[in-house]
Amino acid sequence: MSSERNVTPPQFNPITGAIRALAMDAVQKANSGHPGAPMGMAEIAEVLWRHHLKHNPANPKWADRDRFVLSNGHGSMLIYALLHLTGYDLSIDDLKNFRQLHSKTPGHPEYGYAPGIETTTGPLGQGITNAVGMALAEKVLADEFNRPGHAIVDHRTWVFLGDGCLMEGISHEACSLAGTWGLGKLTAFYDDNDISIDGHVDGWFTDDTPKRFEAYGWQVIRDVQGHDPVAIEAAIAQAKANTAQPTLICCKTIIGAGAPNKQGGHDVHGAALGDAEIAATREHIGWHHPPFEIPAEVYAAWNAREAGASAEAEWNARLKTYRAAHPELAAEFERRMSGKLPSDWTAHVDAVLAQVTDKAETIATRKASQKSIEAFAPRLPELIGGSADLAGSNLTLWSGARGVTREHGGNYVYYGVREFGMAAIANGLSLHGGLIPYTATFLMFSEYARNALRMAALMKIRQVFVFTHDSIGLGEDGPTHQPVEQIATLRFIPNMDVWRPCDTTESTVAWACAIERADGPSSLCFSRQNLAFQPRSAAQVAAIRHGGYVLSEAGNAERGEAPHAVILATGSEVALAMEAQAKLAEVGTFVRVVSMPSTNVFDRQEAAYKASVLPARVPRVAIEAGVTDFWRKYVGLEGAVIGIDRFGESAPAGQLFKEFGITSDAVVDAVRTLVG
Amino acid sequence: MSSERNVTPPQFNPITGAIRALAMDAVQKANSGHPGAPMGMAEIAEVLWRHHLKHNPANPKWADRDRFVLSNGHGSMLIYALLHLTGYDLSIDDLKNFRQLHSKTPGHPEYGYAPGIETTTGPLGQGITNAVGMALAEKVLADEFNRPGHAIVDHRTWVFLGDGCLMEGISHEACSLAGTWGLGKLTAFYDDNDISIDGHVDGWFTDDTPKRFEAYGWQVIRDVQGHDPVAIEAAIAQAKANTAQPTLICCKTIIGAGAPNKQGGHDVHGAALGDAEIAATREHIGWHHPPFEIPAEVYAAWNAREAGASAEAEWNARLKTYRAAHPELAAEFERRMSGKLPSDWTAHVDAVLAQVTDKAETIATRKASQKSIEAFAPRLPELIGGSADLAGSNLTLWSGARGVTREHGGNYVYYGVREFGMAAIANGLSLHGGLIPYTATFLMFSEYARNALRMAALMKIRQVFVFTHDSIGLGEDGPTHQPVEQIATLRFIPNMDVWRPCDTTESTVAWACAIERADGPSSLCFSRQNLAFQPRSAAQVAAIRHGGYVLSEAGNAERGEAPHAVILATGSEVALAMEAQAKLAEVGTFVRVVSMPSTNVFDRQEAAYKASVLPARVPRVAIEAGVTDFWRKYVGLEGAVIGIDRFGESAPAGQLFKEFGITSDAVVDAVRTLVG
Repeated sequence: MSSERNVTPPQFNPITGAIRALAMDAVQKANSGHPGAPMGMAEIAEVLWRHHLKHNPANPKWADRDRFVLSNGHGSMLIYALLHLTGYDLSIDDLKNFRQLHSKTPGHPEYGYAPGIETTTGPLGQGITNAVGMALAEKVLADEFNRPGHAIVDHRTWVFLGDGCLMEGISHEACSLAGTWGLGKLTAFYDDNDISIDGHVDGWFTDDTPKRFEAYGWQVIRDVQGHDPVAIEAAIAQAKANTAQPTLICCKTIIGAGAPNKQGGHDVHGAALGDAEIAATREHIGWHHPPFEIPAEVYAAWNAREAGASAEAEWNARLKTYRAAHPELAAEFERRMSGKLPSDWTAHVDAVLAQVTDKAETIATRKASQKSIEAFAPRLPELIGGSADLAGSNLTLWSGARGVTREHGGNYVYYGVREFGMAAIANGLSLHGGLIPYTATFLMFSEYARNALRMAALMKIRQVFVFTHDSIGLGEDGPTHQPVEQIATLRFIPNMDVWRPCDTTESTVAWACAIERADGPSSLCFSRQNLAFQPRSAAQVAAIRHGGYVLSEAGNAERGEAPHAVILATGSEVALAMEAQAKLAEVGTFVRVVSMPSTNVFDRQEAAYKASVLPARVPRVAIEAGVTDFWRKYVGLEGAVIGIDRFGESAPAGQLFKEFGITSDAVVDAVRTLVG
Repeated sequence: MSSERNVTPPQFNPITGAIRALAMDAVQKANSGHPGAPMGMAEIAEVLWRHHLKHNPANPKWADRDRFVLSNGHGSMLIYALLHLTGYDLSIDDLKNFRQLHSKTPGHPEYGYAPGIETTTGPLGQGITNAVGMALAEKVLADEFNRPGHAIVDHRTWVFLGDGCLMEGISHEACSLAGTWGLGKLTAFYDDNDISIDGHVDGWFTDDTPKRFEAYGWQVIRDVQGHDPVAIEAAIAQAKANTAQPTLICCKTIIGAGAPNKQGGHDVHGAALGDAEIAATREHIGWHHPPFEIPAEVYAAWNAREAGASAEAEWNARLKTYRAAHPELAAEFERRMSGKLPSDWTAHVDAVLAQVTDKAETIATRKASQKSIEAFAPRLPELIGGSADLAGSNLTLWSGARGVTREHGGNYVYYGVREFGMAAIANGLSLHGGLIPYTATFLMFSEYARNALRMAALMKIRQVFVFTHDSIGLGEDGPTHQPVEQIATLRFIPNMDVWRPCDTTESTVAWACAIERADGPSSLCFSRQNLAFQPRSAAQVAAIRHGGYVLSEAGNAERGEAPHAVILATGSEVALAMEAQAKLAEVGTFVRVVSMPSTNVFDRQEAAYKASVLPARVPRVAIEAGVTDFWRKYVGLEGAVIGIDRFGESAPAGQLFKEFGITSDAVVDAVRTLVG
């Protein structure tokens, strides 16, 4: 196959031999994993990691390090081998524990598990997209912080990717934008081995990939012999020389190169080689050491600790000069990279909130969201917004928004109609550090981005997802645009905080909580239509942060009596709950209204607080313009839920609420049926 | 703007004037909608619909009609105008009801609402992808049914699309495959107007689109003047002449062409023009009729009923000749296009099921799924399978599978790593008729395809989604690949039937139900790991079709006593429930085990049946290796749920079930706590 394909096989040596051996031995020991990519990309990895990657293994969080992303994350043993060999805190025992419970070396590279893993990869296409975000972050921060003679932000982003990433649609979204933005410090190595899981890709992947990337405005270096260090070196030099375009280096490689009988075929992609082939490989590549034994001279050749320390020291010296010349900028840069909010943040939030409650506006919560951005963004230059071609509908622009362009950075990104790419690029912005991204689309199209939302939650990173047009309340655009099950399904993502505020006050608190939440993403769901302002005491305003609270006590509470029922509601349905409360009071039925803007946050509260909001043995009715089953966790089998368990319709919003029975009268009827 | 862009403006006439007038007037009357695309594509539509589209307005379901897809579905008034003008059963009153409740003319074209709407569009990128599926269906059916001298399947697929569709990642997936398959009868018109919602696309869409499509292997016709009928005619001729490649016709257009003050800008994209601009437009385009009044001669010029009737009559004559020459093929073709299963289907299912229960195999349910395909597919030539590069893991290949290639059709599609594209292409296969598609990926990556699953449910079309590796049971690949919330969130999609079978018998029934379900899609979730066979009576086997049933009665039932508790379980956890039942019996606690392979189907059963399975006032415990909150709808606040509310980990599967507490001992403890 290699001759047909005009691929020059590797000249084996102990340096790359260490990668091949560690990869095949670790996969064999785990009896699962993917040896093909690490063995096929050993030479590329060697040239990049030993001669170009700017990093300091002793400080994997160094702000100005190059970022490296293994977008073909199933080849995780490649990055584990590289981290181990170059001197990161990843021992040979860690490698022996490949794919074992609670090891630092899980099956796919997981952010937060091993030092030096910049992002979690595995879901194909998202790694390259995160990398586009990282390179964009570098561009934005360089534009903001660098000054003549002071290039304090000046690093590159390197990506390995395979056929799978290139087939995924998200690669189109991300790489199109990378070309538009002219991300000259982004370089991707395409592991062009002609093999995917189902076999030779001829039957399902016939793109002219170089031509495709040229159409995106990338520099493309074609037909690079991926096992020839000289060719790789030359390609990297060409990539570095072009500062105006991202570069795709198309590397012809042999999957599993070094395994004499299995290389070049899909059997080597995702399974252990087996003892016989491993022995044959040792012979073939001239690696005569037992598993997990690396000769000292090989370690020495790979070790990057000294070079890394001096690179960081040199940068520290430059930072010192910068600090002397621009002390405020330097302090701000360090705050930003630390992820800490400004010291006056809490006071500012309180002041904003006081204004909002004073104004008592009845507006759409998407408009309230825009006002929150307008209030918070001037104090938070790390906020970097954006929308998937719905800026005017999502209301994510603000007076200080400055769009990112090819020529300069900014604090607002026009993502175009690319929801998945947007969310995963923003994950990259967040992972890079120094920025807090918010992104936006219609709530329905959270589905296009779904797995990137999950990845943010899994990686425990901060991103604010703004989702507007949160129900049938969007009206005439109809069922394809009307969320029914989306809010409930977002709430089911572990570590995702979902908020659905009912008015300006709750919208402001939701935004504040989302910004403050450093260990996970938040989804903020806002209405298209106006929602009535709800008056609250100071204690009630403070209680919003608990995710659920008593918005309006039952009329019989003054007499020390228990409410006859509790109504739970979110977002646009809170006003209906309040109406129902009033109607019921007229007939002597006294109900408490609980506003529950975030069930996720409420669920984390102490049991006593939760019981104080939702007293036991009081009948409960929930109302939300979405699937009803979600609410059984609060109302039980005996309670009632008013919601929508079918698809929406195209019509003016007011008609739809009636059509679907989302009315205060329905709440009244449900309460009266329960209370009897 | 038009001069800068070198776009020749239209020469207005009453034929295209009718489209422009209907579009702007209907949007104005509804006071919402998108006039820009209909007005900008009026000339393209005129040439295609009056001179090329093969259709019969009197029979919108004619098997050999051309398929037309408006991928930029927000421009819905364009297709409503075309259907009305050419003589479909869509009256002027229907057009006046644009975007009103229960009208045939909702905000986006909805499949099943107006005749002639081939698919629901609006979520961008999916229309072109459905169209790729329709064109693939034509190719596959032509290959299967045509005989020398008998081209009984011979029609084209036409698509209108805009910048939004081209930005979406799914357009990459679909169009790459269309190129690979050489779909020569697929022609797409790109409405290249340089405008998307956020404004001029320069800032976020700088692709060289023609070059990109050439990279996919398409014929690209560049720089066509989209308001010049002669140029459009020539481009269509060139598209038709190339039978080996799909064609993209890049049409330079002016958005909202005809509105003298608003055309060419984004204000005309998605809002009513307003009375003044409408009056100015009438003047500008020379249309002097009141809203919704079309002169008889204009109707006459558009009317396609006569031409359509004779086209269909000509085809019917050819079908008659075909039937004479190939009676069995003709009968099969007619059965297939009717959507009816073979007459011996039920008997065949029973026979297969008898074999399966006889064999009593303990295998992975993904393997059981493969055996179901192997058993059913030979009798169901309409089954067309596929996987997103995971054929060997999803086990979707069978002995009679024949891959579709550029050269010929087949019954299996190698989709490559393109989950969203796959699902939406398969929606197109289903919509075309004559085929029942099944597609496959890991359950986790249902998220990549999420909105296409929803679209299948919304359109009420048949597709079988096979999702394997359905829990932490997949083991070492770790949290990026381990579903936790996915099953629950799939169940929340209205009209989606989700099945999670526990053994070979339930797997077989799930497959049979999915195939039989003509009015909606099914998601079948299968295990990677072996699952124990569960013995059942014939009545129990029959009860599987109810979605939930008593798999094992409590030991005290013989004495006429009520069970002490009910355990509900699905899939791999059913065996744990059975173990717990046995352990509990040893200590005198008698529990019933309910297997609940499909909660959606169970929920549709009559109340009496449901109560017979889940008796009131008996404590309930649910176990499923996924998010727990879903199960509150069955166990209430008092019951217990054993599941997983956090992300998975990378480790061998057996260890993970212990780590996450998904064990029979946990069930035993929960029951004993409840029973007291």
